[in-house]
Amino acid sequence: MTIDIKIEKTTSPKTKPETKGLVFGSKFTDHMFILDYDHGQGWHDPRIVPYQNISMDPAAKVFHYGQTIFEGLKAYLTEDGRILMFRPTKNIERLNLSNERLSIPEIDPELALEALRQLVLIDKEWIPEGEGTSLYIRPFVIATEAALGVAPSLQYKFMIILSPVAAYYAEGINPVKIYVESKYVRAVPGGVGTAKTAGNYAAGLKAQEGATELGYSQVMWLDGVHRKYIEEVGSMNVFFKIDGTVVTPALNGSILHGITRDSIIQLLKHWEIPVEERQLSIDELEEASRSGKLEEAFGTGTAAVISPIGELNWQGEKLTINEGKTGELSAKLYETLTGIQKGAIEDPFGWTLEVK
Amino acid sequence: MTIDIKIEKTTSPKTKPETKGLVFGSKFTDHMFILDYDHGQGWHDPRIVPYQNISMDPAAKVFHYGQTIFEGLKAYLTEDGRILMFRPTKNIERLNLSNERLSIPEIDPELALEALRQLVLIDKEWIPEGEGTSLYIRPFVIATEAALGVAPSLQYKFMIILSPVAAYYAEGINPVKIYVESKYVRAVPGGVGTAKTAGNYAAGLKAQEGATELGYSQVMWLDGVHRKYIEEVGSMNVFFKIDGTVVTPALNGSILHGITRDSIIQLLKHWEIPVEERQLSIDELEEASRSGKLEEAFGTGTAAVISPIGELNWQGEKLTINEGKTGELSAKLYETLTGIQKGAIEDPFGWTLEVK
Ligand SMILES: Cc1ncc(COP(=O)(O)O)c(C=O)c1O
Ligand SMILES: Cc1ncc(COP(=O)(O)O)c(C=O)c1O
Repeated sequence: MTIDIKIEKTTSPKTKPETKGLVFGSKFTDHMFILDYDHGQGWHDPRIVPYQNISMDPAAKVFHYGQTIFEGLKAYLTEDGRILMFRPTKNIERLNLSNERLSIPEIDPELALEALRQLVLIDKEWIPEGEGTSLYIRPFVIATEAALGVAPSLQYKFMIILSPVAAYYAEGINPVKIYVESKYVRAVPGGVGTAKTAGNYAAGLKAQEGATELGYSQVMWLDGVHRKYIEEVGSMNVFFKIDGTVVTPALNGSILHGITRDSIIQLLKHWEIPVEERQLSIDELEEASRSGKLEEAFGTGTAAVISPIGELNWQGEKLTINEGKTGELSAKLYETLTGIQKGAIEDPFGWTLEVK
Repeated sequence: MTIDIKIEKTTSPKTKPETKGLVFGSKFTDHMFILDYDHGQGWHDPRIVPYQNISMDPAAKVFHYGQTIFEGLKAYLTEDGRILMFRPTKNIERLNLSNERLSIPEIDPELALEALRQLVLIDKEWIPEGEGTSLYIRPFVIATEAALGVAPSLQYKFMIILSPVAAYYAEGINPVKIYVESKYVRAVPGGVGTAKTAGNYAAGLKAQEGATELGYSQVMWLDGVHRKYIEEVGSMNVFFKIDGTVVTPALNGSILHGITRDSIIQLLKHWEIPVEERQLSIDELEEASRSGKLEEAFGTGTAAVISPIGELNWQGEKLTINEGKTGELSAKLYETLTGIQKGAIEDPFGWTLEVK
C-alpha cells in the first residue's frame, strides 16, 4: 500500500520562539496533519496543511459528549543532527486502544506513522537544539458530527499538531511535592481510565487546583473503589523504590498504560534490579516511609520523562523521601532514558526510530 | 443591573424543517448566543448572532482535556400561543454547579436567563406546534485557550443553541427494554458524575453500543464501587414502584441531579404517594420482580420526560415489568408533567416561566 499524503506548505512561516523559558505546549509549528472520517466512507483525505484554526459546528459532538482521544510523544534532535522519534508505534497502538474504548473507528497504524514522519520532517527546523529539549507531538481525534443525540459520531477528524518544548527542568531534575488526594477520584475499573481521553483530564482539574493552593505540584490518585491503592501521579505513572525493590501499580483497568512506564520496567529488568507491578496501598507506603524503607519515588511520563518525588502529603502527614533529594536510581533512569531518546547513548531496545 | 445583549439578525433565514419525524438534536435554528471569557477580564460581550460555525484553534483545551459542561431544557408553545420555559432557573443553577466541578468560572445567572429568553424570542417561529413537540435548548461552555498544559483554561465560550424537536413518542408513550450493565461504569463518588460534563457521556458510549446490539434501547448503570446499586438509565434518572411505594436512587455523589427527577418527586408528594430516595440494589429489584412487587419502572429526563421501562435484562435474566406495558402511574405522571409544561393544565408549583 502506498500512502499518499497531500501537502500544502505555508507561505507565511512563523518566527520560531526562543527555546529557553518556553511554556510547555504553548507554541505550535507551521504545519498540521488532518485526516477526515465520514460514516460509510471511512478515513479519507490525509493532508498536511498550514497550522490554522478549524471551523466547527457548535453542535459538534466533541463539545457536548466528549468523544475524543489523544496521544503525546516526542521527536528529538541528536548531536549529529539526526531526528529520532521515541517508540511511536507504541503510541499509535495506544491511540487505537483509546479509539476502541471511545467507539471511534480505528486508524490505519501505517498511515498514522507516515503522517507523523512527514509532518515532523516538514517542520524539522522547529525541533529545538540542546539538552532536554524536544518537539512534542500531539495526535488527537475529535468527533465533529453536528448532532445532539448521545451516540457515536458519524464524522471525525484525526489531527496532529507539533509544539517545540524547552528542557522540563531548567537546571537538572528537581524533586516535586505531591499531595495524596483523598476526596476526588480520577478513574475506576469499568470506566475510561485506561484510555487517553479528554474527560479523564477534566475530572482531575479540581483536585489539581486544590493541591496547587496548598503548595503541591501534583496530586497522587488513589483507586476509586477502596480509596487506598495508589494509581498515578497527576498525569504520570508512579514508581517507588522500597527496600531495594522497585514497585509500580499494576495495570488494573483504571490507570494509563504509560509508555515511559513500560520503558522504565524494561530498563530495570535489563539492569537486573528487582521490579514489581502490583497493588500498592498508601498504608504500605506510609509504613515503608516510617521504617526508613521508602528509598525513592518518581513519576514517569512523556513530558517530564522522570519526575522525582521529594515529599508526599497524606492527610496532613508529610512523608519526606530521600531527604527531598533526587535518588540515585531516579537520576540514573533519567540519564539513561533521555540519553537513548537523544541518541547520545546506545539503544539496545530498538526504541528510537530515525525520521528521514 | 441592565443586561445588554448585542443582536445581529440573520439575513438568510433557513427553511424550517417538518416537525414530524425530526431526529432529536439534528436541526438548529437561525440564531445562537455567545458569551466570551478571558482571564483577567471575566465574562464579556454577550451577543446573539446568526447560527454559524465557530473558529477553533486545534490546540483548544476542550479538544484535549474535555473542560466543558452543558445543560438541556425546553421551551413549549401553548395552545393559546404563549411560550413557556420549564424551570430554567434550575438549569442555570446546575450549570454553575457543573462549572464549579470543572473549574470553569461562574456565569451570572441573570445574564444566562436573559440570554435564554432573548434567544428563544428571536427564534420563536421555530418552536413546533402540537402534542409532544418543543424547542430543545442547549446551553454549553467550552474551554478555548490554545495550550496543551493540563490546567484550567484561561479562555472560554458560553453558547446557547436551539433545536426544534418532534414528539419523543410518535404514538403515545411506549415502554423500552433496558440492559443492566455489569461490565462498564459511568461514574463513581469523587468523580464528575454529578456534573453535566462531556466526559460522562463519552464514557457511556461503549456500553450503549453493546446494549443496542442486543436489542436494548439503553443501559441501566450500577454504582462503580459495589457494582450493585442502581444509579441511572442511559442519561435519565430512574424510578421504581415497588409494592405501592415509589423508590428512586438517592443523590449519592455520582448521579446527576435531574430536574425532571425533582419535579416527579414533588408531584408524587403533592399527590401523597409514598416516595423514597434511597440506595436500591439490583438484588432488591430482582427479588421485588420475582415476588410480583415490582409494579412499574420509568426513566426521567428532559428529552423524553417519562420513559416507561417494560423489561430489564440482568445478566441474561429478563425481568418483565407490568407485562411490558406502560403503568398507570407512569402514564399519569407523563400526562401531568407534559400538561404543565405545555400550559394545558394548571401549574401549582410555579415551574413554568412565560417568555415574552
Ligand atoms: C493519565 C496519564 N498517566 C500516565 C501518563 C504517562 O504516559 P506516557 O509515559 O506514555 O507518556 C500519561 C501521559 O503522558 C497520562 O496522561
Ligand atoms: C446523565 C443524566 N442523567 C439524568 C438526566 C435527567 O436530567 P433532567 O431531568 O434535568 O433532564 C440527564 C439529562 O437530561 C442526564 O444527562
